[in-house]
This record gives sequence, C-alpha cells and structure tokens, in this order.
Amino acid sequence: MSLVIVGSVAFDAIETPFGKTDKIIGGAGSFISLAASYFTRTPMLISVVGDDFPEDYIKLLNSRGINTEGLIIKKGEKSFFWSGKYNNDMNSRETIVTELNVLKNFEPIVPEFYQSADFLMLGNLSPVVQRRVIEQMRHRPKLIAMDTMNYWMETTYDELTRTISMVDVLTINDSEARQLSKEYSLVKAAKKILKMGPLYLIIKKGEHGALLFDDHKVFSAPALPLEDVFDPTGAGDSFAGGFIGYLARNKEVTFENMKNAIIAGSAMASFCVEKFGTENLIGLSQKQIFNRMQQFVELVKFQHDFPVIN
Amino acid sequence: MSLVIVGSVAFDAIETPFGKTDKIIGGAGSFISLAASYFTRTPMLISVVGDDFPEDYIKLLNSRGINTEGLIIKKGEKSFFWSGKYNNDMNSRETIVTELNVLKNFEPIVPEFYQSADFLMLGNLSPVVQRRVIEQMRHRPKLIAMDTMNYWMETTYDELTRTISMVDVLTINDSEARQLSKEYSLVKAAKKILKMGPLYLIIKKGEHGALLFDDHKVFSAPALPLEDVFDPTGAGDSFAGGFIGYLARNKEVTFENMKNAIIAGSAMASFCVEKFGTENLIGLSQKQIFNRMQQFVELVKFQHDFPVIN
Repeated sequence: MSLVIVGSVAFDAIETPFGKTDKIIGGAGSFISLAASYFTRTPMLISVVGDDFPEDYIKLLNSRGINTEGLIIKKGEKSFFWSGKYNNDMNSRETIVTELNVLKNFEPIVPEFYQSADFLMLGNLSPVVQRRVIEQMRHRPKLIAMDTMNYWMETTYDELTRTISMVDVLTINDSEARQLSKEYSLVKAAKKILKMGPLYLIIKKGEHGALLFDDHKVFSAPALPLEDVFDPTGAGDSFAGGFIGYLARNKEVTFENMKNAIIAGSAMASFCVEKFGTENLIGLSQKQIFNRMQQFVELVKFQHDFPVIN
Repeated sequence: MSLVIVGSVAFDAIETPFGKTDKIIGGAGSFISLAASYFTRTPMLISVVGDDFPEDYIKLLNSRGINTEGLIIKKGEKSFFWSGKYNNDMNSRETIVTELNVLKNFEPIVPEFYQSADFLMLGNLSPVVQRRVIEQMRHRPKLIAMDTMNYWMETTYDELTRTISMVDVLTINDSEARQLSKEYSLVKAAKKILKMGPLYLIIKKGEHGALLFDDHKVFSAPALPLEDVFDPTGAGDSFAGGFIGYLARNKEVTFENMKNAIIAGSAMASFCVEKFGTENLIGLSQKQIFNRMQQFVELVKFQHDFPVIN
C-alpha cells in the first residue's frame, strides 16, 4: 500500500567517541524513507532542502525506490544543518549547532498523487507542519503515525496536542512520555496519552527496547544487545521507518501486526547505529534484514515451564 | 534440591513518594529466602541479627518453610539498620542512615546439615563473608549464584574478584556491569565479566528487565510494566530469590531453565515492589504467582511474520 513520509532532509556533523564526520546526509525524512524502502515499494517523501544539497544524494534515495517529487529544493537557500557530539556513554549528546535554514518557514506541499496514500508517517517536525500535511490528504489515510520530541512539548504544547489528537500512532521516548503525561509510571503515562487521541502509543527506550500500548494490551519488544554502537543518530527515525514500512506492506492494522512492525523497526534501528549517519541503511540485503529480525525472535524465546508451587 | 541462602536480615526505614515506614523487616536474606520459599521447600538461611530482632518475624520466616538454624542471634547487639529515601522518579535513592551493627564483624557459620546443599545463593554482602560461606560447604554446590553491588567494587575490588572467580552465576545491575568491566557496551561488559570466572551473568535493568549471558548466548527478559511501584527496596533480592528458588526446584542447570528462572525472579520482584518491604512476599498464592509469570509470557509473545523484502 502507498506510504507518504514527511520529515527533514538535512546535513549532520557528528562526533562520537569513535570518530567525527564532516557534513553528512541526515534528517528524519532520510532515515525514515530509507528504512521504509526495505519493506514497501516507492515510499513518497515530503521535505525541503536548499540548493546546497547534492543531487547525487537525491538520486541515491530514488535508487532505493523513494519518490522525491514532494522534496522541494529552495533556490538560494541552505539546507537544515545540525551538529552534535555524543558523550562517552553514547546515551546523551550535546547540540553544537542548529541552523534551521529552509526549515524555518517550511510549508509542506503534498503532490497530488501522494494525496490518496493509505499510510502517512509524520517524522519529527513542528506539529503545525505535521498537521498541514494531514490537511492536504484527500481522504484520511488508513493509518497516521507521528513522531515528536520534548522540544515541541516545551515550545508549542497546544499545537502539539492538537496534532496528536489527529493521529493513530504516536512514537516518543520514555522521558518524553513522562514529560507529556506528567506521570512517572509508563503504564499511567500511556493511559493518559491514549486519552489524547491516538489508538496506539509506542514508547521507545533505546537500548532497552520499546513498549507498544493500546487501551487494553501491552507488548514489550527487546532491543538487540549490540557489541558496538557507533553513532546513535537516526535510530528513532530508522525505527519509525521500519515500523511504518512493515505495516504499509499491505498489512491489516492490528495489534498483532504492530508487534512485528516494531520488530522490523527495531531491526532497522540496530543496523542504523552500526555506522555513521545513513551509511548502513543503503545496501542491506533481504537476507541481512530477515536474519536480524530472527535474532530478535531468538533473544526473547523461551519454553515456559512454570512449576506447581508449594 | 536443597538451597542455602546467605544475606542480611535487618531493619529498614523507608520513605517513598507514597509514604513512610517505621523500622520494618528488610535485608537481602529476608527478601531472597521469602521469594525462594515459593519455589523450593525449606530454603536454609545464614545470617545474623541482634537481640532487638522480633522473634515473631523469625517465626514468620519459619512459617514459610525457611530454616533459620543458620541465623545467629547476637546477645547485647543490635541488628543491621538501613534508612533511605526514594526520589520522585523511584529510580534513585539517598541513604540516610547505615548502622552496620552485627554485620560489622559477621562471621557466618554454616550449620552441618546445610553443608551438603546443592544450591548456594550468596546475597549482597562483603565478598569475604560470601567466600567464608563457600569454604564451609562440604562439597562444592551444584550451583553457586552471587549478588553484589558497586560498594564492593569501590572498596574491596581484589576480594570481590576473588569471590566472583569462584561462582557460577553473577547478578549485578547494568551500571555495575559497566563499572566492573570498564566497558559501556553490555555485550562487551558481559564478555569481560564471564572471563573473570562465572559461567552465567545476569544483568538486572530494573524497569527494563534483565539480560542473561553465557559464553555464546543471550536472553532478554522483560520487566512487567507496573501501574504503581510502591517501594523498590528488595526488588533485586526478590529477583535473586525467585531465580535460585526456581532452579533449586530439582531443575537441571541449563541456559533454557535459567530463562524460566529469570521470569520467576522477575515475577517475585514485581510482587515485591507493589507494597512496602517484604509485606507482599508473605501471603502469595500459587495461582497468583503462576498468573504473574504467565503475564510475562503474554508481554513478549508474538507470531513472527517476516516479509520477503523488495
């Protein structure tokens, strides 16, 4: 089924304990669409870059089947740029530079043939921009998923909750779930957030996996314990891309299918962090992805054998 | 099979965002032996208290089948006392008072009929005391498991690693695994720690579950997302008790059985934190424990359905 993705396409400069990059390609839209491209044909990307953005990279996205008609190239303007440094624990990072550039006044345009897509993934962006994409769809998509972050909770809370009320799936991390709900218990946080509108909440816990909640059920997905995490940038976006890509692959939207979609997302996130930027999301084989998802199955599998207790 | 447990039996005074207790019964030995008592008959406890310790509580342990012949009562001395306050997130705590009292010069004595036990659980205590228990066993137990904490890594590193080299299973939390191995990646940390002697390493991650490692395999156990965590004190000890109790129930010591043992431990930890101190480990029914373990099965269960990818 057809999938539309909105998210930044940008330059990142990253420093981790393992090395340092010059400006490389990043942005939620890049990670999401690349990860999704392994599960669903021709994801359609909505984004904006400046004319400093290399055409070769757009061709690279196209070579993975990603449609970029919704990627606006603004003449005489510069692409979004973020630079950050990860601390030794790779869990926390400092932002060194954020240059919004073309993102400052980004007015997303949904090309006509995108407008009847069945699946819509709103990558982390201003909730107003996310809503402008929903509003341009001809019919309400079968499923709208949305990623966001603490920044929008702090700066545009009302706009954020308005957009959240319009989506089916919200993905945030555990500290953001606590911040948004003002509840420490993730079970209570999930209950409150689901009352804000979404049918499903995914709480991303990085190296600790993810939790999927609906009104009645919860699923706990593990993260793969990795020997080396090289660069965590884009892990959450790769997760979102694998997740929505899996579902858009002609799947019924059920809690059971979402479990597999979360494993697909977790697998893509695990590939992402093994190299800098989007590098590891380029040439993966079908077999590599299948084997990686299988590792998640093995990781949690056990033959339960519960005793009759004294 | 027979199980010997060593660990403190003590008074705790606890403050959490949900309330405050006077001196209540605590200590690793109490939590471990109570949790184990639901899986294995007559766990044998080695510990020490002062003559301020209520006889009724020892009777309570006995009523759960716990043998207390190895519990020394020191006339004219006071029991170990710890007082702490949990912060609002329930994840961090401050110690307000630590009075070692009888623990200061604790010389464990292993009663003769304990000495041929098949399973030995060394609760968190000085590694010298832990080793003194191992040395008094007539034969090497079939399985020795050991819990410890960062305090011993900082104050008695050499003694600690000497004791670690003598055991089969080490249980520590994730920050302790990093501290002990000087590796941030838990996969690398596990490799290093397993080289120190143990055949199995369990990394406890609190609300994020636990990881079990041997030389070749890894198992990820979830934690049950709880609506309310009332008092986290003793969760790690209850985990250890459920774990060793399950294994001592005449089980082969295999990686597969250890997975179930970890679920048993996680279930007992989840009961523990729902009330203050040991309160919730007293009157559990067989059905409650079975149902709780079943909740862990449901939490991670999924019918994997992996696509053939483009």
